[in-house]
Amino acid sequence: MPPRLFDGLVLPASADFHVHLRDGPMLEAVAPTVASGGVDAIFVMPNLVPPITTVEHALSYKKSIAKYTDAKLLMSLYLHPSITPDTIREAKQAGIYGVKSYPAGVTTNSASGVVDYEQFYPIFEAMQEVDLVLNLHGEAPPGKDITVLNAEEAFLPTLLDLHHRFPRLRIVLEHCTTAAAIEAVKKCGSNVVATITAHHLSIIVDDWAGDPINFCKPVAKLPSDRVALLQAATSGDPRFFLGTDSAPHPLRAKKGGAGPHECGKCAAGVFTQPYATQYVLQAFEDAVNKGIIEKERITASVLEGFLGGFGREFYRIEASGKKIRLSAREEKVRSKLAVGSAGADAASDVVIPFRRDSQIYSLEWLED
Amino acid sequence: MPPRLFDGLVLPASADFHVHLRDGPMLEAVAPTVASGGVDAIFVMPNLVPPITTVEHALSYKKSIAKYTDAKLLMSLYLHPSITPDTIREAKQAGIYGVKSYPAGVTTNSASGVVDYEQFYPIFEAMQEVDLVLNLHGEAPPGKDITVLNAEEAFLPTLLDLHHRFPRLRIVLEHCTTAAAIEAVKKCGSNVVATITAHHLSIIVDDWAGDPINFCKPVAKLPSDRVALLQAATSGDPRFFLGTDSAPHPLRAKKGGAGPHECGKCAAGVFTQPYATQYVLQAFEDAVNKGIIEKERITASVLEGFLGGFGREFYRIEASGKKIRLSAREEKVRSKLAVGSAGADAASDVVIPFRRDSQIYSLEWLED
Repeated sequence: MPPRLFDGLVLPASADFHVHLRDGPMLEAVAPTVASGGVDAIFVMPNLVPPITTVEHALSYKKSIAKYTDAKLLMSLYLHPSITPDTIREAKQAGIYGVKSYPAGVTTNSASGVVDYEQFYPIFEAMQEVDLVLNLHGEAPPGKDITVLNAEEAFLPTLLDLHHRFPRLRIVLEHCTTAAAIEAVKKCGSNVVATITAHHLSIIVDDWAGDPINFCKPVAKLPSDRVALLQAATSGDPRFFLGTDSAPHPLRAKKGGAGPHECGKCAAGVFTQPYATQYVLQAFEDAVNKGIIEKERITASVLEGFLGGFGREFYRIEASGKKIRLSAREEKVRSKLAVGSAGADAASDVVIPFRRDSQIYSLEWLED
Repeated sequence: MPPRLFDGLVLPASADFHVHLRDGPMLEAVAPTVASGGVDAIFVMPNLVPPITTVEHALSYKKSIAKYTDAKLLMSLYLHPSITPDTIREAKQAGIYGVKSYPAGVTTNSASGVVDYEQFYPIFEAMQEVDLVLNLHGEAPPGKDITVLNAEEAFLPTLLDLHHRFPRLRIVLEHCTTAAAIEAVKKCGSNVVATITAHHLSIIVDDWAGDPINFCKPVAKLPSDRVALLQAATSGDPRFFLGTDSAPHPLRAKKGGAGPHECGKCAAGVFTQPYATQYVLQAFEDAVNKGIIEKERITASVLEGFLGGFGREFYRIEASGKKIRLSAREEKVRSKLAVGSAGADAASDVVIPFRRDSQIYSLEWLED
């Protein structure tokens, strides 16, 4: 049995700056698990169907979520041609925290290798003025020689270009997965930060090759990329903090179809919400035990910063003061989460958590 | 509609120098499809459960296969510690064609980066003496910094080392997938050849990311690797010829479990047997239509060589003289193949062919 590094550790509640909660029965199933992951503040992604492109929609979604969790909710809009500078000002006044950009539908300027966001410059200008955060899904759109392996690296010139054009715009490079992305963020000013997921601290390409449960976008990459992510997450650099990108999908969608003769593309996304903090600690512990990073890097202030402090500072929110305690007593990741009131019978939907059935830290909330 | 390049083309029957036919009901379902792929000679892989490690087993397996296909059957043994130099001599006399090596269970000499086959040197010596072919699954075993992406390239020093130690041993680097592998084979003498699959001429990493049906080992790699494979296959270099590595799995195994709440690792393998010739031609046509290779490369002698002539020459077998004709009339890849007499009802097994439901050349056998 390898050493358990975090037994008895007490930490401020974590914050998770990139979550997908969905709506309907999936929201009902997933939102209550925010607390079990030791998290008391979440940045909620706006990619519902249809996506959230109005302040009204964001606020009504916020109300729906609040039925199921006490966590502080940082809401966002989906960058879309229907959004105007007025929408941005309205969003700021309504307490919206960010605007999420997906590169789908934008084109790459082949001369410069830069994704062409020109249509959105007036929006970015307004965001810069009112200080609303731009959340980037940093992958180049499909194109010649662009693959799931290099799409993130191919996007980095765009990150640098946007930072150069809008130097006061605060930007998050979401769920960064490569050593190259870490370096690019470091090259920018303090306005540019990056979230790192729990699962990208744990897995590499081999873990999702032939395993739909571990498949997500951006895909997990090489061992050297995982090392760079682990080093950034344990560096104490406030530009790198947790955003799990927890993305629940029904198992039937993960497997590309429910029926025994049905097959198709697997939904991309790893579900980490119920153990957000625990997965990060497990990833650090595994990395130390394998000799990938040194135990000495993982100080209390490094953990507190990566798991919430740095993100709260960036988004300018207060800590709740609540505390959590980890313990190494025998606990395993649950094998599945039932969706809908019908429970987990054969016909119902289930969501499979990351590292199902494996050993995990136990987490409890301390009394105020 | 992009141009159809091979309408009306008449070719000698193809030969497929790397097939998995399995046994039992799967053999019964798959073996008859050898003919529909325009193939009249196949090299049969020995990885049954248990694997074929005796001449007796190989010959009884050959009899089982012959019930379902008239194709010429080139049988092989599975490289295993139980095999002795006497086994090799017996195999040669019995008309066995090759010995297949899987690197599982062998170790890498960390100093040289070479897989340690030392225990098998007496076997290779005997194979060289009697002129039995060594068929290599060319991927380095798991290890630090070895991933599904670089396992083949990491194996290449082993290929060169084996060729150096046994210069008269005829070696096939099976299902090669990288530009680096093509270059390594070219560096060796004419004793070293490589098979290329139909699907690796078609797909890249993005095609199996999140798509279990396209997932195989070695995995399909980068666009530049696919270009190198297409160029090798259309070069007229007799060291590169078709071996489909057609690997049927029940759909439930491809999806990592049949039940609606069941999940696990997806079986690796792409099923191409029923359209072996057609898939190759489609890959060439697609590559020409996308400007990846020039139409002028694909001469009749290039096609005849890659699709059978070069492999027959290497294995020293005669062509049957049978001919096939391709036509561009409306035809689609079947959506599934039923396994077992029960047919394709919900409870039964099905195998999903590569590029199911997509346009494909129609193939007919010409009268003798």
